[in-house]
Amino acid sequence: MKPIGVFDSGVGGLTVVAALQRRLPEESILYLGDTARLPYGSKSPDTVTRYTERNLGFLEGRGVKAVVVACNTASALALPRLRPRLPTWGVVEPGAEAAVARSRSGRIGVIATESTVRSDAYGAAIRRRRPDAEVLSCACPLFVPLVEEGWLDDEVVETVARRYTAPLADAGIDTMVLGCTHYPLLRPVLARVMGPGVELVDSAETTAEAVASGLAADRLLVRPPADPAHHLCVTDASAPFARIADLILGPQHRPLELVDV
Amino acid sequence: MKPIGVFDSGVGGLTVVAALQRRLPEESILYLGDTARLPYGSKSPDTVTRYTERNLGFLEGRGVKAVVVACNTASALALPRLRPRLPTWGVVEPGAEAAVARSRSGRIGVIATESTVRSDAYGAAIRRRRPDAEVLSCACPLFVPLVEEGWLDDEVVETVARRYTAPLADAGIDTMVLGCTHYPLLRPVLARVMGPGVELVDSAETTAEAVASGLAADRLLVRPPADPAHHLCVTDASAPFARIADLILGPQHRPLELVDV
Repeated sequence: MKPIGVFDSGVGGLTVVAALQRRLPEESILYLGDTARLPYGSKSPDTVTRYTERNLGFLEGRGVKAVVVACNTASALALPRLRPRLPTWGVVEPGAEAAVARSRSGRIGVIATESTVRSDAYGAAIRRRRPDAEVLSCACPLFVPLVEEGWLDDEVVETVARRYTAPLADAGIDTMVLGCTHYPLLRPVLARVMGPGVELVDSAETTAEAVASGLAADRLLVRPPADPAHHLCVTDASAPFARIADLILGPQHRPLELVDV
Repeated sequence: MKPIGVFDSGVGGLTVVAALQRRLPEESILYLGDTARLPYGSKSPDTVTRYTERNLGFLEGRGVKAVVVACNTASALALPRLRPRLPTWGVVEPGAEAAVARSRSGRIGVIATESTVRSDAYGAAIRRRRPDAEVLSCACPLFVPLVEEGWLDDEVVETVARRYTAPLADAGIDTMVLGCTHYPLLRPVLARVMGPGVELVDSAETTAEAVASGLAADRLLVRPPADPAHHLCVTDASAPFARIADLILGPQHRPLELVDV
């Protein structure tokens, strides 16, 4: 009856939790949002790796059976440098999988944080699956603050999105990876800006799929009848977290536990 | 020959360093930008206080003779809760001082981070000096990311600025406090948006003035001839820091020391 541990720098990883709840409704989930140290996306590999190690240690200490690193930046920068003791999944490999499955032309765009883009983790993961793929990445540092401000679909976010994605649109991509867990909340405006010729993919569904197969293979799936419990921890009590959690998981009375990691 | 310690969550506090260099050209300065944990402006008083304590301890350990907390959020949230051992100045009191000196009507606007606004530190400091003052505050969470993105004066920042400051403009303020050390970099666009009837004040000059008087009173000023040295430390090596440091201090070869605080 041990929970699956999921962590992200902030609230965005709840998009992965929502996908896990749909795919594995019997499983319990323990979520950690490292809101005291967010954002990760502008920080260096060393710093992100240090924070990731502490978060993994916290979840292990709470007795989870497996870990999902639902933060693209931590998946891209820290996971390749760590040897976690528990079964652990990041979101970059599943995201790359989804992009390669959807793209016809092999011309794939990736939007992500500065650090994720600089790591070229998506580019490498996509080319590993399809060596002739042409991957164009662009960093969108204002998207996370815009989402946290709750400006999801207006004049400002549309202008910013057009400016960031112009090189990808010009290059004629047919698939765009939303390489940050906040970005699915901007899907309507991104779909409008990119037009119907570009398919938007995010890692949430494919990550849930990878976790389901992995847990099944390791015989770690809960045996029904189960009584799934979901618990959310944050390292700082901040206002945007609860507001955006409601957007992603639906409004509910969810006590947030404040933890020191 | 001990330096003055200055810290901020990031790069913005260098606007205070620039003012200190102009006012006290003989003094050495040791700067700490806590870039691994920025931003402070969306975090809780407890978290900001914990970080501030560590930063003060780091500067003390490096042998500074006095500390300037050049971060509005830390000045507003943490300083009132701490008892620093060294002479220490925040930026809120000097900013309030400047605003009261400039305002005729006593109708004063404050733009700042969410946490600073929530603390009402500026409101309290202004009303302590002028009890009939009417203080209107508004949080501008996107300004720091816009500055860090280098979008200082364009269509996006102007639209965002108009949206944030509309309630202050409607209320007919005659003075607006730039209550975050990043905001002076947006001065041209803010001046255009607010119009000539609103004076913009920031804390940098008045803070430098307060530090100069305080050090003189405590007999802590360096005795000429001096050979001032300036040294910058950061807790994370991030790209925007160096770029914006050049904007504020002028381009120079400044080695950044990476420290663990």
